[in-house]
Amino acid sequence: MADSQPELPEAHHADLESMLSRKFGKEVANYFSGSPLNRVSFLRTDHVFLSQAFKHPSASFLLFNELSPLVRSSAELAFVRLADIQPLVGPDPYSKPEAELIRDYNSAAPTPQLIFLGLDGRWRKEGEDKSGFVYKDVYKGAPFFALDVTPAEGGGESVVALRSKAEDLIKKFEGEDLRFEGGRHILSFPALDAAIYAAARHTMDWNKRNPFCAACGYPTLSTNGGFKRTCPPADQNPAAKPLPPGGTLTTSTIEPPTNRPPCPTRNAISNVSFPRTDPTIIVAVVSADGRRLLLGRQARWPPRWYSTLAGFIEPGESVEEAVRREVWEESGIHLGRVVVHSTQPWPYPASLMIGCVAQAVPGEDGEKIDMGHDAELEDAKWWAAEEVREALNVGSAGLGEEPGKDYKGGLRVPPRTAIAHQLMLAVVERGFVGGGVPKV
Amino acid sequence: MADSQPELPEAHHADLESMLSRKFGKEVANYFSGSPLNRVSFLRTDHVFLSQAFKHPSASFLLFNELSPLVRSSAELAFVRLADIQPLVGPDPYSKPEAELIRDYNSAAPTPQLIFLGLDGRWRKEGEDKSGFVYKDVYKGAPFFALDVTPAEGGGESVVALRSKAEDLIKKFEGEDLRFEGGRHILSFPALDAAIYAAARHTMDWNKRNPFCAACGYPTLSTNGGFKRTCPPADQNPAAKPLPPGGTLTTSTIEPPTNRPPCPTRNAISNVSFPRTDPTIIVAVVSADGRRLLLGRQARWPPRWYSTLAGFIEPGESVEEAVRREVWEESGIHLGRVVVHSTQPWPYPASLMIGCVAQAVPGEDGEKIDMGHDAELEDAKWWAAEEVREALNVGSAGLGEEPGKDYKGGLRVPPRTAIAHQLMLAVVERGFVGGGVPKV
Repeated sequence: MADSQPELPEAHHADLESMLSRKFGKEVANYFSGSPLNRVSFLRTDHVFLSQAFKHPSASFLLFNELSPLVRSSAELAFVRLADIQPLVGPDPYSKPEAELIRDYNSAAPTPQLIFLGLDGRWRKEGEDKSGFVYKDVYKGAPFFALDVTPAEGGGESVVALRSKAEDLIKKFEGEDLRFEGGRHILSFPALDAAIYAAARHTMDWNKRNPFCAACGYPTLSTNGGFKRTCPPADQNPAAKPLPPGGTLTTSTIEPPTNRPPCPTRNAISNVSFPRTDPTIIVAVVSADGRRLLLGRQARWPPRWYSTLAGFIEPGESVEEAVRREVWEESGIHLGRVVVHSTQPWPYPASLMIGCVAQAVPGEDGEKIDMGHDAELEDAKWWAAEEVREALNVGSAGLGEEPGKDYKGGLRVPPRTAIAHQLMLAVVERGFVGGGVPKV
Repeated sequence: MADSQPELPEAHHADLESMLSRKFGKEVANYFSGSPLNRVSFLRTDHVFLSQAFKHPSASFLLFNELSPLVRSSAELAFVRLADIQPLVGPDPYSKPEAELIRDYNSAAPTPQLIFLGLDGRWRKEGEDKSGFVYKDVYKGAPFFALDVTPAEGGGESVVALRSKAEDLIKKFEGEDLRFEGGRHILSFPALDAAIYAAARHTMDWNKRNPFCAACGYPTLSTNGGFKRTCPPADQNPAAKPLPPGGTLTTSTIEPPTNRPPCPTRNAISNVSFPRTDPTIIVAVVSADGRRLLLGRQARWPPRWYSTLAGFIEPGESVEEAVRREVWEESGIHLGRVVVHSTQPWPYPASLMIGCVAQAVPGEDGEKIDMGHDAELEDAKWWAAEEVREALNVGSAGLGEEPGKDYKGGLRVPPRTAIAHQLMLAVVERGFVGGGVPKV
């Protein structure tokens, strides 16, 4: 595998490259991966740790408003300090043990979503931790958090007060020449910041998208430093007391008193309580002779813009099966060999892109395009390796951007920060498909 | 990559092997993958297709009671015919278009969960479709469905009637020497049946685990042949009319009349509406000298039973990052190279196991075991390749089973149907770790 893998892409990956290629040898580290943070996930239930990390002067906070991050410019995230956000979050949201927060849960008194992202591990590379944060003599590095400052919706005293504080905070930052700017097409943060942002945005989105328990329908609260949503047995909100249609008042098996029906997530660990990541295949399909690439396009994309085929992995599928199914459904092509190339976390909203290179079965049965199955793509066609190489060089840009001045009007493809670009590059420049396939 | 990949495992994979190795060359097809079914996922919204498939005499139904499948024996699934289940499901649950079912949704009148799994594609190998089922002259093969016969819980006329029919059906099958037998440790179905079962169980479990909308808290209904849960704008159940605490009566943007508050899943595609699959890493860690393997054990496992380390991939992680984090958190080991070996769908409840082989960084910094971080494992230790080889030969069995007669009391490992076994085998027998690492 190592021999046939491409080098790391140059672009935004200069810092990743120096770190990874020295330490780990050849490995494709795609944009949005390569976080410098140590998640210390086992400390997320330790409120003493979270509290100390939160209050430490080296702590950094990445803010989100409606899932757009606070930035200095399209190319620079703005990390702020505790003092900047204290009016919204108060002195210490981690002062109480989690069990107490669950016991005292009140759906009428929401708190801003806070996520503990990890401890900065860059000191390991540089040789010394300068943050001064140490926990139990072992866990070091400046703490990073994400915070949602989206003004809360709805009525009730607590909600109105929270909304007003959030609006004040947003105004303050915007007065300091910062702004909230997001959108999935901004791919210009430096690599290490982009990786922090990807984990933060994905986890923030999951919390905001899942305010109710999928198992019982009742509102949940954020726990485990933002990496769990717990369905509490009781709700102190007086308006919440009535039971839902068909519900029965029972004593929870976990923690009386309760005014909610039993919920299976309280008696056993359930995946619905934890962040969701959707495994997705994305694939550069090579013709049987290795000289052409299959690319497809959606109707909403700019003219002449094509990319590699992609789709969600379904229950009961291996990666190879999902690749073969998606490619057949979207283009009618039958695939032979499928190999995994690299992976990319993609936080719009929650994908893990598993990048593959695959080869079509020769002849009419394998390579003939048939768009009559799934209507997802507007078009799919075979492109000569030379056309794809040219597009990677001059026709590559973000979806909202114009290609560079050398672009002459041919094929357009995604930017090098997208794994689609790296997969095409692996095929046309680096001969990823081995085993008798001529280098195109 | 092809050169360093192991052959297909022999065991349960005889039929897969002949199918895949001829067609696709070397590829590890793990147990639970390799389904013979064509999902034709783009036809799931076509009720005319579903209805014809459902009523076709070649249709097969796999039944589940509390997520245990109907079997003839531990080694044989029982597929039944439409006539067998018609008392429970009625003449044609797909007679109406989906839009009508959504419009007429009534939470007090549940229907048994039905899942369209796909069309049997084995005729492609054998050269002729004998089922006689054809749709639009293109889509052929005997249809497969899964059906939940778990007796419904709760009160209300419809629910009581449904429960009684389900109980009758269960009694009938149990009188015919069939039984519902499940549990995650039964791994003895033939490979192709196991793959059908894996997709069915995973999708069934997802439907049962997610009866409420995580975005708004209201009950949902199954659509898209069992592959979507739709949050309808209105509920004909009179008991459902009152709004929840804090809710406001509004007109849905989609389809008035409505007696529910707006839900974001109605205005945009949301992943919460679709089956969840949890990407999970599982890794055979090799020492820097390539002569030892790192294996760990959980406290609840039988004595001397060890396996490869595993854990969920988190938001914003590549596969390699998740592998390095999990291994460090659970054992203190620092990894260098990580390569993907193969994948395995694992329907307990919803994992996609991404199997890797990785290598520890040499020396004290890399290879020293430290169990002090995450408390998940009871033990982790380095095993000589020779001990692992011996265990794969004589100490391998399912968690509930005894090892064979040649077992002398040493290390025990998972059965060959588990990807953990295949990863160990890849290392100790087939020298998967290349790039200068001596074959152990």
